[in-house]
Amino acid sequence: MINAHSYAAYDPKSPLKSWDFQRRDVGDDDVQIDILYCGVCHSDLHFARSEWMPVTYPQVVGHEIIGKVVAAGKNVSKHKVGDLVGVGCIVDSCRHCESCKEDLENYCLEGMQGTYMGVEKQTGQRTQGGYSTVIVVDEHYVLRIPKELDPAKAGPLLCAGITLYSPLRHWHAGPGKTVGIVGLGGLGHMGVKLAHAMGAKVVLFTTSPDKVADGKKLGADDVIISKNEEEMARYAGKLDLIVNTVSVSHNLDPFINLLKLDGTMVLVGAPATPHPSPQVFPMLMRRRSLAGSGIGGIKETQEMLDFCAENNVMPEVEMTSIQDINQAWDRVVKSDVKYRFVIDMATLKTEKPAAS
Amino acid sequence: MINAHSYAAYDPKSPLKSWDFQRRDVGDDDVQIDILYCGVCHSDLHFARSEWMPVTYPQVVGHEIIGKVVAAGKNVSKHKVGDLVGVGCIVDSCRHCESCKEDLENYCLEGMQGTYMGVEKQTGQRTQGGYSTVIVVDEHYVLRIPKELDPAKAGPLLCAGITLYSPLRHWHAGPGKTVGIVGLGGLGHMGVKLAHAMGAKVVLFTTSPDKVADGKKLGADDVIISKNEEEMARYAGKLDLIVNTVSVSHNLDPFINLLKLDGTMVLVGAPATPHPSPQVFPMLMRRRSLAGSGIGGIKETQEMLDFCAENNVMPEVEMTSIQDINQAWDRVVKSDVKYRFVIDMATLKTEKPAAS
Repeated sequence: MINAHSYAAYDPKSPLKSWDFQRRDVGDDDVQIDILYCGVCHSDLHFARSEWMPVTYPQVVGHEIIGKVVAAGKNVSKHKVGDLVGVGCIVDSCRHCESCKEDLENYCLEGMQGTYMGVEKQTGQRTQGGYSTVIVVDEHYVLRIPKELDPAKAGPLLCAGITLYSPLRHWHAGPGKTVGIVGLGGLGHMGVKLAHAMGAKVVLFTTSPDKVADGKKLGADDVIISKNEEEMARYAGKLDLIVNTVSVSHNLDPFINLLKLDGTMVLVGAPATPHPSPQVFPMLMRRRSLAGSGIGGIKETQEMLDFCAENNVMPEVEMTSIQDINQAWDRVVKSDVKYRFVIDMATLKTEKPAAS
Repeated sequence: MINAHSYAAYDPKSPLKSWDFQRRDVGDDDVQIDILYCGVCHSDLHFARSEWMPVTYPQVVGHEIIGKVVAAGKNVSKHKVGDLVGVGCIVDSCRHCESCKEDLENYCLEGMQGTYMGVEKQTGQRTQGGYSTVIVVDEHYVLRIPKELDPAKAGPLLCAGITLYSPLRHWHAGPGKTVGIVGLGGLGHMGVKLAHAMGAKVVLFTTSPDKVADGKKLGADDVIISKNEEEMARYAGKLDLIVNTVSVSHNLDPFINLLKLDGTMVLVGAPATPHPSPQVFPMLMRRRSLAGSGIGGIKETQEMLDFCAENNVMPEVEMTSIQDINQAWDRVVKSDVKYRFVIDMATLKTEKPAAS
């Protein structure tokens, strides 16, 4: 067993605190990764606080992991000791269902195993996430981090990045297409950058007038204040695709009305309370669709990383220490971050093991 | 001007009554059609009763028209005097927008002109529908009725038929696909027949145990009582496509959960009160879509008529007289018809002109 030091949730309400636990030994197909950086995703908070489902504590979260391979099992061929690698939201899946066979492990029909709160097939234990010093993962679910990517910033690509990249590719964002991105947060800012890099015309929708300049700087061709009906009307029936990153309940109809014939609005966030029911007539009248998309498969995540390296697409991040993680979470709740926190895990390694 | 005799709505509540009015003269691009049969669509009731929008009375409804060409303008080339023809839901559109140029007049960006309650470009008058003796229509919007189709039964193809055919084709119903049809009424029974004729495996969902035998007779491979959770569970994640014909508010989630990865549920009816808001997670977890579809274009409607002729697909109809139309409507409201009324217009022609 491998000793791991972490910051964990002990209950739904208290701040995260030190926790020492053990990772499984490195199996024949596994790599052991020394964690250098871990991004902070809003889902980390939702899960740690039992907001989406009941959690057994202590629970370590974090699924935007960048690290170095320090050991590899005998069957490992994709990665070697010393490689810079990443682990996103998925550490295992059934590998034999229709989805897995199509490299869509994120849609595994038997249920993918999350990097945290999944079940470790090898041990039967719950998986524990990346707010920790070390992780052991089957090499299939480990990504190669291209050398062009700054390892301190690359973490958020593994969740926020792929969550936007996958629907943009699936619904054909690219030259000649007008793509709307709703919301400018951790997900939305990657949507703007990625859709722009894919060659689409990008229209950002935000409720915050103070995000207009930032939106344009990040790559939006236009920024619309979504509460302003006149501004919204300028894009009525003009968008081929909208990726809606807002995960609080809101009226979808004003956005659906911006779609062209055969246009699709893809939801990538699920609200805790339902959105108001979308009207059916506007969908009927233009054969519009409302769809959902959840992260992406391992092959596509690697493709996304390579795309970002080639096109110099990087998240905007603010570094934090593990000791400041609870303040960082408070700011995530208030959307007070541009646009993603990354924890420098060097700050965890210098800590003494937790008193048990 | 051409004298027309009809049954019209005079207000939202009274029974339909005789009304004499005038059709425009036959223009250079028009055909004059002697109406032989007209199907009864539930929309006829909604519109005539101002349930969807306020109506100016008197209003003649009916958009499943079968008749014979009795006159043709000098530019007319598609049809000639004596031809058996049909007129569906559309009698005009802008003809120059992106949708019209793609033969999708049903999605005309300037708004298609309905067979009733549209605006007649040639006169500026409201259009009046097919519960009448005669109609004058631009030849582009007039369909050829293949000789294999029984004219007394073909009317419902022009609305119910195309409303189902178009989404089944657009979302690729065919061999190897499992297609769900929700609801067995005028629309649903055409969905079962068409999807079966296209070679798909067809699963009918109904709330009525007494429709099981009928559903199978019409071509369903399986019939599921949608309120029975155990029966529903048998198709969890199994359907490529669902066409939902139910236009009263109902919970969409049990059906969305039956879709495969990348499956779509298409709504072809719009409820007067909204459906409960669909849950987002089940859409995210399988990249599922919820879409809308509205009738079909003229070219596709002709293709559908030819398909029905080749494959012997015909609506199940009950004939009625115009004098019994109000009783027929009462039965439509109670879903007491298998599965579509058609008015024999000979019964209208033998009436004397209405007292004015």
